[in-house]
Amino acid sequence: ISLVSRMATDDYVGFTFFVGCMAMMAASAFFFLSMSSFDKKWRTSILVSGLITFIAAVHYWYMRDYWAGFAESPTFFRYVDWVLTVPLMCVEFFLILKVAGAKKSLMWRLIFASVIMLVTGYFGEAVYRDSAAFWGLISGIAYFWIVYEIWFGEAKKLAVQAGGSVLSAHKTLCWFVLVGWAIYPLGYMAGTPGWYDGLGSMGLNMDVIYNIGDAVNKIGFGLVIYGLAVAQSKEK
Amino acid sequence: ISLVSRMATDDYVGFTFFVGCMAMMAASAFFFLSMSSFDKKWRTSILVSGLITFIAAVHYWYMRDYWAGFAESPTFFRYVDWVLTVPLMCVEFFLILKVAGAKKSLMWRLIFASVIMLVTGYFGEAVYRDSAAFWGLISGIAYFWIVYEIWFGEAKKLAVQAGGSVLSAHKTLCWFVLVGWAIYPLGYMAGTPGWYDGLGSMGLNMDVIYNIGDAVNKIGFGLVIYGLAVAQSKEK
Ligand SMILES: CC1=C(/C=C/C(C)=C/C=C/C(C)=C/C=O)C(C)(C)CCC1
Ligand SMILES: CC1=C(/C=C/C(C)=C/C=C/C(C)=C/C=O)C(C)(C)CCC1
Repeated sequence: ISLVSRMATDDYVGFTFFVGCMAMMAASAFFFLSMSSFDKKWRTSILVSGLITFIAAVHYWYMRDYWAGFAESPTFFRYVDWVLTVPLMCVEFFLILKVAGAKKSLMWRLIFASVIMLVTGYFGEAVYRDSAAFWGLISGIAYFWIVYEIWFGEAKKLAVQAGGSVLSAHKTLCWFVLVGWAIYPLGYMAGTPGWYDGLGSMGLNMDVIYNIGDAVNKIGFGLVIYGLAVAQSKEK
Repeated sequence: ISLVSRMATDDYVGFTFFVGCMAMMAASAFFFLSMSSFDKKWRTSILVSGLITFIAAVHYWYMRDYWAGFAESPTFFRYVDWVLTVPLMCVEFFLILKVAGAKKSLMWRLIFASVIMLVTGYFGEAVYRDSAAFWGLISGIAYFWIVYEIWFGEAKKLAVQAGGSVLSAHKTLCWFVLVGWAIYPLGYMAGTPGWYDGLGSMGLNMDVIYNIGDAVNKIGFGLVIYGLAVAQSKEK
């Protein structure tokens, strides 16, 4: 017996699970090991970036095995991962805006909205699939609440106050949330029944879409924070 | 049951998988642990060298198991590894030329060419084996694009501008790409059907060739960067 499964060479879902798993491990090593090169003020943010990719690495490890073993979407593990990593991303917003005096209440509001978004998404995708469109709608409302908070709400004001490289990193992260995160509802629509069924039959695969989304958002997000820490170390 | 498989003493493919796996692990430990001895400016390059061997270590771990379990080429894992490590090597070129003002566009161009090279190679080796010679040709064109960029293109000019130990490291890396990377198309020809079938019947084994190529290129490449960092620390 072998510890790795036999992979079909045209199993592109499996391929993206394996690439994703390794990319997350490498990104974690990168963030963890570069942490000590930064100013104390920035270390927590880099550490959290590493935690996000590390949590993902572990779940991708499960998911690639699950996929190889059962040829079935590992929805369960997907949401275990998200319910930990998305709130941590909200913490990242708070951490970079702390210099401008961000309050914890902002962070909790974002975390609350993200949990609503994910719990309702899980209901639609895994539990009450027949009303997936309904649950997806609720989830989408929570998603737009987050978008609103960071693009126009208190977070925006704080970023403007901080200015400089904090403002421009905040702007990039806002785009990640608006465009990068929008990949996920696409995957959801490809993988659940609803009025949008045309999408799934376009040959889009939910897991491939989610895997691309995760690579872009988790690693990209972390690299923006990394870039911010580099820029701030130079400014002084 | 035992976690390691029984190995035939004349299983040279298996032997090179095991040697490769351990060499990659040791190289990663070497790069990661020596990182902090260098100037901040060089740490990222050393860290990326370590990531390259670390990613390889994980995939060699899979591949040696896969080989021991199924006595079959682990093509799938081979390409998962390459699709991550070859772009990281392109990042290394960018990182060492940054001192001379390299732009991100150079890096993205190299990454793009390397992804084309690998995706077409995968198609030929794993999916459309009957037209392996055709896919190999496309892959080879992308390979020569990379060779051209670094030997004669923008990268060359930047290296000349930087001069000193950066120029000589760049030169060595250029030779790695021209000669070291040329090992891979050899392995490809040994392992796929085509007009070049004579090679395979010469008793050359694709996996042994790839394993040698990886050891030379991943560890050697990293050591050149390491040597550059040592030289630069002395120059000041
Ligand atoms: C809007 C929406 C969704 C949004 C999911 C998002 C935005 C997930 C983000 C995950 C991230 C960023 C993970 C990275 O670590 C769901 C739940 C698919 C359900 C359908 C509607
Ligand atoms: C030209 C060519 C190829 C080149 C592969 C190369 C150049 C791979 C390099 C891998 C490295 C450097 C890995 C180390 O980390 C293929 C795909 C075999 C297909 C046939 C044509």
